[in-house]
Amino acid sequence: MKKFAIILAGNGVYDGAEIQEVVLTMLAIKQQSCDYQCFAPDIPQHHVINHLNGEEMNETRNVLIESARIARGDIKNLSEFNVYDFDALIFPGGFGVAKNLCSIAFDGAKASVNEEVSKAVIKMHKNKKPIGALCIAPALIAKIIGNGLNVTVGQDEATANTIEQMGAIHIETDHGDVVLDEENLIFTSPCYMLDANISQIYDGAYNTVEAMIKMMD
Amino acid sequence: MKKFAIILAGNGVYDGAEIQEVVLTMLAIKQQSCDYQCFAPDIPQHHVINHLNGEEMNETRNVLIESARIARGDIKNLSEFNVYDFDALIFPGGFGVAKNLCSIAFDGAKASVNEEVSKAVIKMHKNKKPIGALCIAPALIAKIIGNGLNVTVGQDEATANTIEQMGAIHIETDHGDVVLDEENLIFTSPCYMLDANISQIYDGAYNTVEAMIKMMD
Repeated sequence: MKKFAIILAGNGVYDGAEIQEVVLTMLAIKQQSCDYQCFAPDIPQHHVINHLNGEEMNETRNVLIESARIARGDIKNLSEFNVYDFDALIFPGGFGVAKNLCSIAFDGAKASVNEEVSKAVIKMHKNKKPIGALCIAPALIAKIIGNGLNVTVGQDEATANTIEQMGAIHIETDHGDVVLDEENLIFTSPCYMLDANISQIYDGAYNTVEAMIKMMD
Repeated sequence: MKKFAIILAGNGVYDGAEIQEVVLTMLAIKQQSCDYQCFAPDIPQHHVINHLNGEEMNETRNVLIESARIARGDIKNLSEFNVYDFDALIFPGGFGVAKNLCSIAFDGAKASVNEEVSKAVIKMHKNKKPIGALCIAPALIAKIIGNGLNVTVGQDEATANTIEQMGAIHIETDHGDVVLDEENLIFTSPCYMLDANISQIYDGAYNTVEAMIKMMD
């Protein structure tokens, strides 16, 4: 049974992982007869956003502890990630990817990337194992791998420009589309970077996972 | 287009709503060409559990604000719920149902129920509109409506006993099964009250929503 590692960035679209994208990625993996293990870095969130009114809250939360909520406690510290235990790696989106896993939300193309995240991506890439990224996460992959990589975040011009400044190539897409960079084994889909409903998110996650599985055969 | 109200109990299985059950209920509703609106009561959580180690945290969180994370901010205060705006009502599970929406986790059959939750259920029931409940939530419905109601929480003997003490009838079920109480229009499925995987949770949520939609035609 093929095994995916899923890297989470917290628990909530505005300061963590986009919850619906995480759950539908898990579902897509299980429905296609594969298994998954969740990981997250043991670091403080950049900040905590009240998701009802959008305002910052005077609190601190930890990315690993909050991510554990989506995974029902079945999650590991990203420091324990071993590339040889997995056939594929996938990043759901959410602002947490751009605020906690790297600093793209604040620094654009000049962003820094969490070292454990960077290491996981580089090792999977070197070992020719597929990497998937949804929503804003393709920008993270572009920042790490860069040169000539084909990725999509849908139709958001500002983010597409940032991605091109990183040396990657942005391809416009619509709901459920997946950009396959077969040379680099990178698979990206826009999900909530478009104005989407939950059924379209499922399509994006399912199609991305399906494309990744095809490359493992 | 038929419209479901989804009542959330927070954001995380151990102190709030079971996140996967919430998201897969949303997906099941959208995939069957219906729409939904999320609601949650504006009350403090009973407590905050660290989902990584299971220990209580020295924090306070609000049920409505935390529930908003799953709904991407698109959620209303349960005090605004109007039975005439909806065709159906559904409760995903999670300990939050038994800790925040009522006190079943602590008081068993003698539990008290949040007044807004109770009112929403009673009004939907009186207006002969279907009510769905997943996981532990059938115990909440049994507490509110009680007498002679047929419900399931799967195969958990202790919870089944509590439900029978409330005057309802517990029916044993397996993954994906739905107990239909057609007289009362109550639809229940065990989901994570069984040792399940995410694909089985999807089946339970999908089948419950499907059974409810059939009763609306």
